[in-house]
Amino acid sequence: MDARHGDAVPAGTRRPVDQTAMRAHNLGLVLRYVRDHGSCSRAQIGAATRLTTPAVTKIVADLLRRGLLEETGPVQVRGRGRPASMLRLHGRGLTAVGVEIRVDHVGVLVRDFAGTELASGRRPLSVDPSPRAAVRMAAALVDEALDRSGRADAVGCGVALPALVDAHDGTAVGAHWASWNGVPIRDLLADALGERCGVLGLDSAARLAALATSRLGEFRGSHQLVHLEVGAGAGVGATTGGALFTGAHGYAGAFGHIPMDPRGPVCTCGGAGCLNAIIGFPAFARDLGDQAGADECVDYARYAQEVAARIRAGDATAREAVERLGRWLGRAVAILVNLLDPDTVTVGGYVLHLQPWLMDAARAEVAARVRSLGWPGGRLEASPLTDQAALLGAVTLALEHVFADPTTVAATAAQGSSGRRTR
Amino acid sequence: MDARHGDAVPAGTRRPVDQTAMRAHNLGLVLRYVRDHGSCSRAQIGAATRLTTPAVTKIVADLLRRGLLEETGPVQVRGRGRPASMLRLHGRGLTAVGVEIRVDHVGVLVRDFAGTELASGRRPLSVDPSPRAAVRMAAALVDEALDRSGRADAVGCGVALPALVDAHDGTAVGAHWASWNGVPIRDLLADALGERCGVLGLDSAARLAALATSRLGEFRGSHQLVHLEVGAGAGVGATTGGALFTGAHGYAGAFGHIPMDPRGPVCTCGGAGCLNAIIGFPAFARDLGDQAGADECVDYARYAQEVAARIRAGDATAREAVERLGRWLGRAVAILVNLLDPDTVTVGGYVLHLQPWLMDAARAEVAARVRSLGWPGGRLEASPLTDQAALLGAVTLALEHVFADPTTVAATAAQGSSGRRTR
Repeated sequence: MDARHGDAVPAGTRRPVDQTAMRAHNLGLVLRYVRDHGSCSRAQIGAATRLTTPAVTKIVADLLRRGLLEETGPVQVRGRGRPASMLRLHGRGLTAVGVEIRVDHVGVLVRDFAGTELASGRRPLSVDPSPRAAVRMAAALVDEALDRSGRADAVGCGVALPALVDAHDGTAVGAHWASWNGVPIRDLLADALGERCGVLGLDSAARLAALATSRLGEFRGSHQLVHLEVGAGAGVGATTGGALFTGAHGYAGAFGHIPMDPRGPVCTCGGAGCLNAIIGFPAFARDLGDQAGADECVDYARYAQEVAARIRAGDATAREAVERLGRWLGRAVAILVNLLDPDTVTVGGYVLHLQPWLMDAARAEVAARVRSLGWPGGRLEASPLTDQAALLGAVTLALEHVFADPTTVAATAAQGSSGRRTR
Repeated sequence: MDARHGDAVPAGTRRPVDQTAMRAHNLGLVLRYVRDHGSCSRAQIGAATRLTTPAVTKIVADLLRRGLLEETGPVQVRGRGRPASMLRLHGRGLTAVGVEIRVDHVGVLVRDFAGTELASGRRPLSVDPSPRAAVRMAAALVDEALDRSGRADAVGCGVALPALVDAHDGTAVGAHWASWNGVPIRDLLADALGERCGVLGLDSAARLAALATSRLGEFRGSHQLVHLEVGAGAGVGATTGGALFTGAHGYAGAFGHIPMDPRGPVCTCGGAGCLNAIIGFPAFARDLGDQAGADECVDYARYAQEVAARIRAGDATAREAVERLGRWLGRAVAILVNLLDPDTVTVGGYVLHLQPWLMDAARAEVAARVRSLGWPGGRLEASPLTDQAALLGAVTLALEHVFADPTTVAATAAQGSSGRRTR
C-alpha cells in the first residue's frame, strides 16, 4: 500500500530508472544502512548492501562531500587485517525539527542529523484551541528551540497532529476537535513555520508513533508493524518495512469509528458501538462511574496513573474496568491482526499507564480470535517509545526526504550550518 | 505493506541498483505499459514513461527479440507526421495457466501472453476433498487443457486456493476445510503440476480476485482496491497500485474471524459473533430458516439465485434476510474503509446474485460509518469480473514474474512455443 516515505527509486510502474535515479537510490541505500547500524566500515556496508567495493568507495566519498557522513578514527574490526576507518552520520551538518500538536499540549524536539537532541520545548494547550492558535504556538516553540540549538535553520520539519491529513488538499480530517475538520492545516503550518524549517511533513500522531516504533528502539526492523494509539479516540498507523501505509486519500487508520458492538453506546458520530465510544478515554472514565472525568478536559496520562494507583491499593472496581477495557482493546487488535497480519502490534496513549491489568486481558482476547487460523504469532506490547513515540516519529519524518534521496542535499552543506536543499 | 507481485527494482532498502537491475526495471516498465494500454506506438510509450526516445527504441528492440512484443502495421496516430508502427503483447510466445480450487469445483484457464483464451476446463469437487485429491484433479485438468491449447508448456501457473498460504513454509492456513490446515500445499502443487507449468504462484481466492479486479475490467487502475469475497466465510484481498498486500507471514486478509458482535452467534472457532458466523453462507441459509441449506454442501450461487427469484416473486421474508445480510456486509466494509481508505471496494461470492437488495443496504451502513470522517468517497460494487475474478487473478499471477523482470525470458523464446526461463 502507499509507502509515502519511501525510496528514491520508485516501487511503482510509472517512472523509469536512469543513471541519476540509480545514484540517488544507492546513496540512500548506504546512508540508511549507516543510520540503522551506527558506526560501520566500508567493508561492512559492502557486505550488507552487496554493492561492489569501488561502488561503496565512490558513494561514501560522495556522502562525505555532502556532509552527511563523517569518518572517525581507524578501528580494528574483528581482528581482520588493517584497522578500518569507521563511518557514522555527521551530526554537525543538518538539523531536524519534530513537532507534536496533541490534545493537551504542543511539543517540539530539535535534533542534529546524527540524532543528538539539541533543544526541546513543551507548552500546555488551551481547551479546544483554534487551529491557528495551535499552529502559532507550535511555530513560536520551534523558533525558540532552533535559537537555543544554535542552528540557523533546519533541513526538514515533521508535525504530528490530532487529525488525519487529506493527501490531496492538505486539510485536516477526522480531527480530535470537530472545528479542525476541513481546515487547510498543511498551508497553515507551512506559512507559520516558514522557510527556516525546510521541507514540511505532517501526519497523524498515531501514524507517526507507528513510524517511530518501527524505526527506533526494541521493535526497530519489524517488517509489518501496527500501532494503535488510544486517547480520546483510537487511531492506527501501519508500516511495512518501515514505510507508512496511507490509503487512497491519506485517510487510512481511522479506526475509531469501526463498529464493534451493534448494541453498544452511541458514538459522537451517531453510530452505535463505535470503537471510540468503547475504549476512548471518556468512555473509560464513564465506565469507572466518573462522568466528570468523561466530560471535562483532563490530563489523560495523570488520570490513568491515578487509576493505576487505586488498583494497586486494592480497588477491585477499577481493576475490573481496566480488564474490561483490555478485552475490548484485544478485540480491536484482533481485527488488525486478522486483516493485516503484523509481526508487531504496539499500543500507546493513556493505556500505557494501565499495562499490568490491561495487556493480559487484551492478549487473551487476541489469542482466542486468531487460534483457528494458527497465526504464527507476533507480539502485542506497549510501544517502547512510550509517550514520546509521536514526537520521535515527527522528527524521523523531518529527515525522510534526505534518506530517500541524499542528492537533494548539496555538497556545500558540509561547510554551512545546515543543508541547502537543491530542490 | 508487502507487495509480493512487484517490480524488478526493489522498493525496500536492501538491494542496490546496478545496470542489470536498471535494465530489468525499464524493460518491465515498458512491457507493463503495453499490457495496460493495448496497442501503442514507441512515441506513446516514451511520453507515458518519460524514457528517452533512444532508450525506448533500445528497450522495444530487446522486448521484440525476447518475443514479448510484436509489431503490427503502421497506423496514423492522431494525424501527426508519419504513420507509426504499433506494438502489442506477442500472443504466440508465452503461455499462462490459471487454476482455481474452490469449495465446489476446480477450474482451469490457459491463455497466451496477449490474454487470448486457448483452453479451459472445469470439474465439480467432491464434498470435503483431500488436498491430494484436489491437487491431482487440478493437475489432470491442466494437462488436458495444455494439450488442447497446442502449447507444449507454460511460463507460469497461478493457483487460487480456498485457504491462505504461509509465506515461509508454503502450508495452507485458515482453509475452508479444516483438514487442509498445515498441509504443504505449495509442495503438493509443485510436484503435481511439474516442470511443464513453469513458475508456480499460489494465493487465496480472495486475494487473487482482488488482484484481477485491480488489473482488469471496469476498476482497472484503482490505486487502493479492497475485495471482500463471501462464500462459506469471508476473505479479503487488498492491492495498492495493483500489488497485493500479504502481511508479515502471508496471513493478511483473514477477515472471517473478526469480532463483529459480542452477543452474536458462536463461530466454528469458538468465538462469539465472528463475521463468518454472521455473513458466511451457512449463516445466511439459517437466517432464511433453512437449516438443511446451512448444514449441507450446496451450490451457493444457485441457492442465491433461487433466493433472488423468491424475492422477485414477492417473498418479503427472504428480502428482509438479504437486507439484513447487506447491513452486516456494510458494517464489515466500513471496517475496511476506515482502516484501509480504499478508492474501490468490490464484493464477490454468493452475494453477487443478491445485489439488487443487498448493495443499497450495505452502502447505507458504510455511509453512516464514514460520515463523521468526511471520507472523500469511493465505490462499493460487485466485482465486474463476477465469479471469474479468482481464476482471472490466478492467470494474472502466472505472468507476474515476466512483467516484473522480462529479462527472465531468453531472447530465443520468440522461436519456441513457450519462453525458456533463464532463472
